[in-house]
Amino acid sequence: MHAKAEVEMFSGTKSWLSISPESHFSLANIPFGIISTPTNSKPRPAVAIGDHALDLSLFAQNNGFSAAPGIEADIQIFSDETLNAFAAKGQSFHREVRMYLQAIFTDDTPHPTILKTNEKLKSEALIALKDVQTHLPMEIGDYTDFFAGKNHAFNVGTLFRGPENALNSNYLHLPVAYHGRASSVVVSGTSLKRPWGQTLSDPKAEPKVPNFTPCKRLDIELELGMFVCKGNALGEQIDVKSASRYIFGYVLMNDWSARDIQMWEYVPLGPFNAKNFGTTISAWVVLADALAPFVTKGMENFTPLHTYLQQDDVNNALDIALEIDITTSKGNTTTISRSNAKHLVWSWPQMLAHHTVSGCPMRPGDLLGSGTISGTEFQTQGSLLELSQGGKIPLKLEGAEERRFLEDGDVVTIRGWSGKGAGLVGFVN
Amino acid sequence: MHAKAEVEMFSGTKSWLSISPESHFSLANIPFGIISTPTNSKPRPAVAIGDHALDLSLFAQNNGFSAAPGIEADIQIFSDETLNAFAAKGQSFHREVRMYLQAIFTDDTPHPTILKTNEKLKSEALIALKDVQTHLPMEIGDYTDFFAGKNHAFNVGTLFRGPENALNSNYLHLPVAYHGRASSVVVSGTSLKRPWGQTLSDPKAEPKVPNFTPCKRLDIELELGMFVCKGNALGEQIDVKSASRYIFGYVLMNDWSARDIQMWEYVPLGPFNAKNFGTTISAWVVLADALAPFVTKGMENFTPLHTYLQQDDVNNALDIALEIDITTSKGNTTTISRSNAKHLVWSWPQMLAHHTVSGCPMRPGDLLGSGTISGTEFQTQGSLLELSQGGKIPLKLEGAEERRFLEDGDVVTIRGWSGKGAGLVGFVN
Repeated sequence: MHAKAEVEMFSGTKSWLSISPESHFSLANIPFGIISTPTNSKPRPAVAIGDHALDLSLFAQNNGFSAAPGIEADIQIFSDETLNAFAAKGQSFHREVRMYLQAIFTDDTPHPTILKTNEKLKSEALIALKDVQTHLPMEIGDYTDFFAGKNHAFNVGTLFRGPENALNSNYLHLPVAYHGRASSVVVSGTSLKRPWGQTLSDPKAEPKVPNFTPCKRLDIELELGMFVCKGNALGEQIDVKSASRYIFGYVLMNDWSARDIQMWEYVPLGPFNAKNFGTTISAWVVLADALAPFVTKGMENFTPLHTYLQQDDVNNALDIALEIDITTSKGNTTTISRSNAKHLVWSWPQMLAHHTVSGCPMRPGDLLGSGTISGTEFQTQGSLLELSQGGKIPLKLEGAEERRFLEDGDVVTIRGWSGKGAGLVGFVN
Repeated sequence: MHAKAEVEMFSGTKSWLSISPESHFSLANIPFGIISTPTNSKPRPAVAIGDHALDLSLFAQNNGFSAAPGIEADIQIFSDETLNAFAAKGQSFHREVRMYLQAIFTDDTPHPTILKTNEKLKSEALIALKDVQTHLPMEIGDYTDFFAGKNHAFNVGTLFRGPENALNSNYLHLPVAYHGRASSVVVSGTSLKRPWGQTLSDPKAEPKVPNFTPCKRLDIELELGMFVCKGNALGEQIDVKSASRYIFGYVLMNDWSARDIQMWEYVPLGPFNAKNFGTTISAWVVLADALAPFVTKGMENFTPLHTYLQQDDVNNALDIALEIDITTSKGNTTTISRSNAKHLVWSWPQMLAHHTVSGCPMRPGDLLGSGTISGTEFQTQGSLLELSQGGKIPLKLEGAEERRFLEDGDVVTIRGWSGKGAGLVGFVN
């Protein structure tokens, strides 16, 4: 496949810019984001490479795309405050821009005067990542969270209903999802307040009389997020076989969850305040092309599916290693889980096909979450609810600390990456 | 109250423009919308009055607001393609603009040369409603649908669980809601396709194997919609006692529902494709001030509420008569229900307070739905599910037709109004 071959080419290629072999932002990645700096507070597009961001607004204004006429005609999109217009240009445009920037940064670049030997532009447009502030990369029209992590669904279902009835009867027939809250999606690094809400001190006691308290079962959900780059009209459906063309790229996601609030509120219309106090995404959107070499087999689903969900290719998951750290207010950091994005029973094309089978319109900038991604082994689960077995068994942390759920001051760090060395493609440096 | 006195004043006042006493768009109303015309396809703000729209963009450009310096400084907002910027100016600004326009249209207007005797501007900016196309009035950041119609919740709960367990245990403690899909909210007049989806031929049969079919239980939900004009930051709460200041205005809403799709998909995360194929709102936003004279007592809730939901004033509902017509493809029109917007057990301030008690941010342009508004009597219910008792007993329509659920080609018309004559305030002419 075209994109795959390109990535392989660049994974063996050196840059004139010093890039650590441990950097998630290798020449094979080139993720897109929105930055501002102390000297220019206007948010603007950038790509991340090694320890640097390339300010695409400055780069474009200073003839950075002059050797690429197909891009040059549209450089006004690099002055926008979000990536929506860039995303809406479609995958072939994203591919052209990414490949051009890879060529610009390659040691034997065919265009050395554009950046490699242009000391003025380098000093202005290449900014150390530690000096940039990242912003939400997209204006999110709608945010939908799926529930495609089958191990998570099984683990949580087991906690509530036992292993016999863990998965609801619809679970393997359709990608279950709920509409989330776009206004509370924030970029990595944003502090969140512990939500207040109605909770039950004993969920089994009758009559049920709620307390009004701060959330006591504050949890994380390790997810992959996907940004849409192409819309469909109201009443139209996205065909599962062409749905991959609607994918702009991916981010890591933490769908913070107030378990005690959720337990009381969610019948019969689903989670609401338990989820709408914050959903964090990583700042840099890793393009679909950059992850194309890491396509792998997802979880098997032996349920006969209706045609609109049938895919020819079983290689429809992404092999992305995932890790969760908790750093406590005492400064102790513990990696509490190691999972992988391949533990999904529904693919992104299936999610898009199902979401639109009703005629629901997608728009560029829409965000879809995978649902919590848990493995099957101990310490591969994507939520504290699973890791602490419903809050019954505390996790042991460094420094003799322990956690059932999050405490005030805890910092959660999620990492995700595929490949290694010059071909390492990841989300957070 | 200030706004109330003004409305009363204008309800006894004549306009130089001929306005039928049956018009929902009386001088006491002045609702805001977005229009385009055959000669100017650019969407732009307008108000509706009698059988006319006043193009606020043209009016503003031609010194229409020159006698109102407090408005004149901000007239660029009347060149926008949505009402978001106008809404975000806040209630005191909406009040000033509405009262000024009422003064402009009053027979003894203090500013006759601005419009009354300005034949050129009248011929250009006053456009017959039949010649304007209306558009979505707001860019909707997020859409949330509540479930505050207690009679509806009881009726539907009875169908599924019997009268003893009709209301879930949380129902009277908190305003239950789900996050809806903003991308599928459309303006009145937009045709919708019957959605396809997974349905069960017999919901009680085991094992459950879904069919893939067009929706067979296509329903309506009679609701009131509310647009937000003021935001809160992430992590902040809106106090129930000041929440009314966050209300821009109201629209009628039909939250179209695919009951058979919903039945299979909704466990455990709530309705999804059953709702995201279309939600219709009326085109003209009736400002909070215009409905202030019609504040009345809502449904009583004897459940002790937590402080954040307690209101001093029991007059927190709106007395708006509501009607639903179905016009079949044979041309027969039947009024199938007569309800009233006062049949809500949660007020808009309570909904806003609950929505944000977690710290969820509201933004100007957010849309909240009330939930289906049903009365207690026969033919006062707001959905076909209730009117046909779960699809068991067909409704008799004109022309010896009947309906359990909607058929292809049916046109649903919702009307809503308060008051009468010169004080008539309604949503659809």
